[in-house]
Amino acid sequence: MIGIFGSGQLGLMLAEAARPLGFECVFLDNNTTGPASLVGKVYPESEFETFCETLDVASLEFENTPLDLAQQLEDRGVLFPGVKALRVAQDRLIEKRTFLALDIPTTGFYEVQCSDDLIQAAKEIGLPMVVKTTRGGYDGKGQYVVKTAHDIEAAWSELGANSPLIAEAFVDFSREVSLIGVRGRTGEFASYPLVENHHAGGILSHTYAPASNQDQIIEAATAKLKTLMEHLDYVGVLTLELFETAEGLLANEIAPRVHNSGHWSIEGAVCSQFENHIRAVTGLPLGSTQITEPSVMINILSKYPPAADLLKIKGAHLHHYHKSERADRKIGHITLSNCETPDDPRLLAIKGILPHAPSF
Amino acid sequence: MIGIFGSGQLGLMLAEAARPLGFECVFLDNNTTGPASLVGKVYPESEFETFCETLDVASLEFENTPLDLAQQLEDRGVLFPGVKALRVAQDRLIEKRTFLALDIPTTGFYEVQCSDDLIQAAKEIGLPMVVKTTRGGYDGKGQYVVKTAHDIEAAWSELGANSPLIAEAFVDFSREVSLIGVRGRTGEFASYPLVENHHAGGILSHTYAPASNQDQIIEAATAKLKTLMEHLDYVGVLTLELFETAEGLLANEIAPRVHNSGHWSIEGAVCSQFENHIRAVTGLPLGSTQITEPSVMINILSKYPPAADLLKIKGAHLHHYHKSERADRKIGHITLSNCETPDDPRLLAIKGILPHAPSF
Repeated sequence: MIGIFGSGQLGLMLAEAARPLGFECVFLDNNTTGPASLVGKVYPESEFETFCETLDVASLEFENTPLDLAQQLEDRGVLFPGVKALRVAQDRLIEKRTFLALDIPTTGFYEVQCSDDLIQAAKEIGLPMVVKTTRGGYDGKGQYVVKTAHDIEAAWSELGANSPLIAEAFVDFSREVSLIGVRGRTGEFASYPLVENHHAGGILSHTYAPASNQDQIIEAATAKLKTLMEHLDYVGVLTLELFETAEGLLANEIAPRVHNSGHWSIEGAVCSQFENHIRAVTGLPLGSTQITEPSVMINILSKYPPAADLLKIKGAHLHHYHKSERADRKIGHITLSNCETPDDPRLLAIKGILPHAPSF
Repeated sequence: MIGIFGSGQLGLMLAEAARPLGFECVFLDNNTTGPASLVGKVYPESEFETFCETLDVASLEFENTPLDLAQQLEDRGVLFPGVKALRVAQDRLIEKRTFLALDIPTTGFYEVQCSDDLIQAAKEIGLPMVVKTTRGGYDGKGQYVVKTAHDIEAAWSELGANSPLIAEAFVDFSREVSLIGVRGRTGEFASYPLVENHHAGGILSHTYAPASNQDQIIEAATAKLKTLMEHLDYVGVLTLELFETAEGLLANEIAPRVHNSGHWSIEGAVCSQFENHIRAVTGLPLGSTQITEPSVMINILSKYPPAADLLKIKGAHLHHYHKSERADRKIGHITLSNCETPDDPRLLAIKGILPHAPSF
């Protein structure tokens, strides 16, 4: 029995990968009616003790897993990945410092404790810069873009209550890519091809797997990811998000879990990111991360498309998360198999069907 | 909500294919703790009314679905496939006569109402012959092989209580193959490549997908299957089992459902038999039945192999049904991807790991 912190669509897809391997899953989440509730019991945090007694191995689908609870499971020797990785992933300052310590190129940053620090940050890293809370925030929330010195006051008044903050240099990138690695209990390491991510409004819109023209950069990026996972004594799937710039790849952030940019691997890789995470945390040998066919993953936001129109498109796979519709909410995704170019007419057909109109 | 008669592994895998399309499943089975109970509520037959009220569409994973209950759902217009197909599939005599009526070559047979009929059958179709109950029986149960006239009495005394029986000519076949088709609500038809099945002790041991050397026979077989499905006003997946003989393909029997010989399609086809069945019965467009990579499916009988050993083998996918171990029980299967020859050394490795030692 695998216990998972969180009960969203990542938990659902982890459980779907776990079952054929002979495992069942339970979840810990105060929202007990999320997608994962379709496939296993969800315990509220008030029943943490029962959750712990039920599980043989613990993992997570949610990087903001409470550290005190995570620590209790780590003390029992059953939590993968461990608290060390969670501490790094939960704090943008620690994360950036970890990148620096491991010689992983990253964006310029500055620690911000007070509004004066913002003025100093602007001098050090230049404008525009992005001011972020060090903890929490996702899909573009908890951020403020400081374009000129006049924005500093407003940035502090919006985010200052959550200080310390981090100011990050605005990166002039040509594209955003991510690299998903998996590390087993015995240190076995594998990684998927680099993929190319496109965001709209701070939310992942779609992913090309593999990213084009990656031959020059994949090797170095993979070596850095391996170093990072070894440093964190990491077990499971970890995602590294990077910017491609004129100076090469810059690490942006990590997610200590399966990732939206790896959903294509269900259909497009020999062994999906979900199955590989389950294999890793249960001590099984890792599966092949080899891509079987180029794929494009497109998120479904806000409103479900008419399934009949979508499924007429050859190679379109629907993943409905059984979530209620709400503006800008990720409620499903589509994997389009055997698609390697943005010019594929099937992508336009999908765009015509999706109510939220993705950015391609 | 899709209601399914039966709650075994086929129900489990149907539900796993249904969820990403936005559907949930419930099941009807007096055994309420089967594999499908992991993914949806199982109602005993005593709660048939509640089961019916819950569902929007009904289907089955079990050809021996009680016809009286099936008829009630058919009367509501929600059962796919319908009672017409079930009547044919549940009775070997009606099945053979349907083959004959549709000009589908099949094995010689003779209806047996009394022991004298067995003597007459032996004259008509020759010895050896296989005597079977017309209803029920699977995996080789409910059968008696009559080799000489001396066996007739014993055959009648073993099976006569279940008469009428059917006597079938013993077929001198070179191999057993099956063809899985799917037909949508609007008559749309698609079929998977022919696959080659190997049995041991009357139970399917392993399947090669695709069957080798099928170019000469697939077209005619597919045309026959299409004719049959149209005749039955069939909606959903139907499996036709055939013998390859010196005289060509002979139809053996049909299964009005997803089939063990189609499990490879989860990894090895663009759209699996399970997803295509769900698409068909819910009125969605069919998915591509194209094979993506040659695969071998191997059943796990009796006892689970050590997962760690199995998953070390590249391209081996485990499907654990969460059933308890019992002699000769199908409790899981393995799909070996990118395997097209019995000489693949990975097959030998799998054989070494499987406690029941499959027949390759």
